[in-house]
Amino acid sequence: MKVINLAEKLALVDTHWDPRVVAGYNGNDIMVVKAKGEFPFHDHPDTDDFFLVIEGEVLLDVGDETHVLRAGELFVVPRGVRHRPRVLGEAKLLLIEPAGTPNTGDAATASRKEPI
Amino acid sequence: MKVINLAEKLALVDTHWDPRVVAGYNGNDIMVVKAKGEFPFHDHPDTDDFFLVIEGEVLLDVGDETHVLRAGELFVVPRGVRHRPRVLGEAKLLLIEPAGTPNTGDAATASRKEPI
Repeated sequence: MKVINLAEKLALVDTHWDPRVVAGYNGNDIMVVKAKGEFPFHDHPDTDDFFLVIEGEVLLDVGDETHVLRAGELFVVPRGVRHRPRVLGEAKLLLIEPAGTPNTGDAATASRKEPI
Repeated sequence: MKVINLAEKLALVDTHWDPRVVAGYNGNDIMVVKAKGEFPFHDHPDTDDFFLVIEGEVLLDVGDETHVLRAGELFVVPRGVRHRPRVLGEAKLLLIEPAGTPNTGDAATASRKEPI
C-alpha cells in the first residue's frame, strides 16, 4: 500500500512497448509503458484492454477505424477486437490487463511485464 | 468504442462524491468524480479500490496512516481495508470498481453511479 507516482515510474523505463507493473487491482496488472512506432495488430479473446494516455499522442487502429488519443484520454478495446497502437513521437500510457495477459495477444512474443 | 476525454466528462459534473461512469472494463465501472471535503470511513469487503488523481490533492486515510495523493498519482486500497478520502480544496479523480460496488461500502447510502 503506497502512493504510485506515474511520472517517477516512467522515468525508470528506457524501453518501448515493454509494460511495467506498478500496482495490482483485483488480479489485474496496472502498468505504465513508453510507446514509440508501431505495435503489431492483435486481439485479446478473453479480456477488454484499457488504455489511458498520460503524455503524447497515440493512434489506435481498431478494426477499420483509427482513433486519436491524447493526454487525459482513455479508450477500452473490447475483448476479441483487433487493434494496434501507433505512436509517431513518443507516448506514455497507463494500461490495465488481467495478470498474465500477453500484451501482443501471443505468449510467445509477449513482454514479461516486470514490476517496477 | 470511443475516445473518452476525462476533462470533458468532469466538466459535466457539478456534484461532489458522485462518481459517474465513463466506460466499462471487464465488468468494472471506470468513473470520474469530483471530490471536496470529507468522505465517510468505509471498506469494500469484496474488492480492491483504485484511485488515480487527475487534478488537485487527496488525503487518503488508510487504517491509521494518511497518504497524500497528487495529480498523476494512484493508490490501490486492498479489499477489506478501511479508508476515507479527504480533500481540502477540490480534486478530480479516476476510480475503478466492479459494477454494482457501493461507493460508501453500503448500498443504502451509495451513489447511483450513473453514466455520463
